[in-house]
Amino acid sequence: MKALQFINGSLQVSNLPRPDGGVEAVVRVVKSGICNTDLEIVRGYAGFQGTIGHEFVGVVEESPGSPEWTGKRVVGEINVGCGICELCVIGDARHCAERTVLGIHGRDGCHADLLRLPASNLLEIPAAVSDDEAVFAEPLAAAYGISEQVEMSPETKIAVIGDGKLGILCAMCAGLRSDNVTIIGKHKAKLAKAERDNIEGVLLDDISGKFKRQFDVVIEASGSESGFATAVDTVKPRGKIVLKSTFHGSPRWEASRVVVDEITIVGSRCGRFAPALELLANKKIRVDDLISEEFRLSDGIKAVERAGGKGVLKVLLRMDI
Amino acid sequence: MKALQFINGSLQVSNLPRPDGGVEAVVRVVKSGICNTDLEIVRGYAGFQGTIGHEFVGVVEESPGSPEWTGKRVVGEINVGCGICELCVIGDARHCAERTVLGIHGRDGCHADLLRLPASNLLEIPAAVSDDEAVFAEPLAAAYGISEQVEMSPETKIAVIGDGKLGILCAMCAGLRSDNVTIIGKHKAKLAKAERDNIEGVLLDDISGKFKRQFDVVIEASGSESGFATAVDTVKPRGKIVLKSTFHGSPRWEASRVVVDEITIVGSRCGRFAPALELLANKKIRVDDLISEEFRLSDGIKAVERAGGKGVLKVLLRMDI
Repeated sequence: MKALQFINGSLQVSNLPRPDGGVEAVVRVVKSGICNTDLEIVRGYAGFQGTIGHEFVGVVEESPGSPEWTGKRVVGEINVGCGICELCVIGDARHCAERTVLGIHGRDGCHADLLRLPASNLLEIPAAVSDDEAVFAEPLAAAYGISEQVEMSPETKIAVIGDGKLGILCAMCAGLRSDNVTIIGKHKAKLAKAERDNIEGVLLDDISGKFKRQFDVVIEASGSESGFATAVDTVKPRGKIVLKSTFHGSPRWEASRVVVDEITIVGSRCGRFAPALELLANKKIRVDDLISEEFRLSDGIKAVERAGGKGVLKVLLRMDI
Repeated sequence: MKALQFINGSLQVSNLPRPDGGVEAVVRVVKSGICNTDLEIVRGYAGFQGTIGHEFVGVVEESPGSPEWTGKRVVGEINVGCGICELCVIGDARHCAERTVLGIHGRDGCHADLLRLPASNLLEIPAAVSDDEAVFAEPLAAAYGISEQVEMSPETKIAVIGDGKLGILCAMCAGLRSDNVTIIGKHKAKLAKAERDNIEGVLLDDISGKFKRQFDVVIEASGSESGFATAVDTVKPRGKIVLKSTFHGSPRWEASRVVVDEITIVGSRCGRFAPALELLANKKIRVDDLISEEFRLSDGIKAVERAGGKGVLKVLLRMDI
């Protein structure tokens, strides 16, 4: 099988033997999505080696442990816990210290013809959700998870910093709860994708001082030091900043303002897939126009380059069947 | 009257005319306490000019607006809001953008024979609380306020980073809620002041790796970049870090760990005085042995120097009556 791998500091399309799933399920991947974390890994973040990718839709080919999954169209939660530690026992494999993470840590990812995951990580995709939509289950789960960590009501004034694909999904999800969402970014065309009745797009260059201490909740989805500075600047006293993007390196921050204004910062990574699939099935969140381009897996290197380009949203890989 | 002032970059004991309280109360200060924030101000933090100090006990000499306060022994909340903004109207003068703060921002402080504050900021001191104890009302309120921001139960594993006076008060207050409090610091003698049945003192040099991802709540009370790094290192996944100390400058931080482990950081500044006075009156918190030395106001410069010395806890000023 083919797989897009990051090995010894460079990206390559490898020919690999069929993976041996053991008791885990083997999934034939139909499509996969390139995430910013993939781009970070290719820059050396997390020191990962192997097949990259963690957003996918596929069909279960074998599942010796739970044969009822065979033939089902699925997405999959990406964290695999050890199963025996205190956190796994209470059902929080996402934070198990010994966890592996699909295409991110200790486990080959989904930019490949086949992948393996425990059947317990899989979710069947409702018929109303297309393959292209289902690829968004993982980032949409992450975006929607914010509303399970931070209270949002129709009156909550919310800002999202960053108009990348994750920022846009965060704004859409925030817009399901609040009548008052602003997305702040650098690209007019990207901002336009998020705009609707209750979501206003604003160019970063236009905010100078306008939003100082204005928002109850600010979602930082740019992953940049300057984005976090904008978050600190625009959140109200006693407000909340949600850190959604993994940061590369150790940014500086105005810790004093956080103390004096008693701001709360909430780290946020993954979310549950089930509500994300439901939002896609009910068409409450539309993701179709967030896809910029689709490449064949054999053109994976080009696809990753394209995904890092200016103004590009989601890039998909289609497996070469 | 005499006042310990920070003017044009240097500390001086000034002779000033009696303050005109207007409608505010004029309080004759009996004793005041030197806080680390005073030391930061003397290093140029916050750009404050004028009389420093914000921890005091005194007797109301005049209160034209509310004459019933005259003659009462009082402490005083330090934030004075504008009274008309949205935050002041809901009772949160502490975060009013136009607020003045006693001896910290736009308002002369308490290291002086007399100070002025609105009568609404004053609290009468119960007879069971001595002058020396009452001086601790402000930092104790700040320490106790944490338990109003972050949930703590007997099972909650709590660490306090920093064995200064604020750190010790934070550990004592955490010990009122939890059976499992560790205070981590650099000074054996200071740690010993906090130790009791449910509070264990541990030297920073002895923790190497021992407490990695161990605590549900970590209270950062050292105000240093390395203290914050220790907090990030020792908090559990999905745990909470309380930032209690104002930081000087812009520290670096491991933002990625905060995102990946979904840690929450809670900025925490002031607390309510009423519960602090109650804790002192009921002898639930003992502060007597936290006083290192007492100076006369006229020796205020020496006192501030002493307060910044190694191994020193609270330094008091006694007014020269």
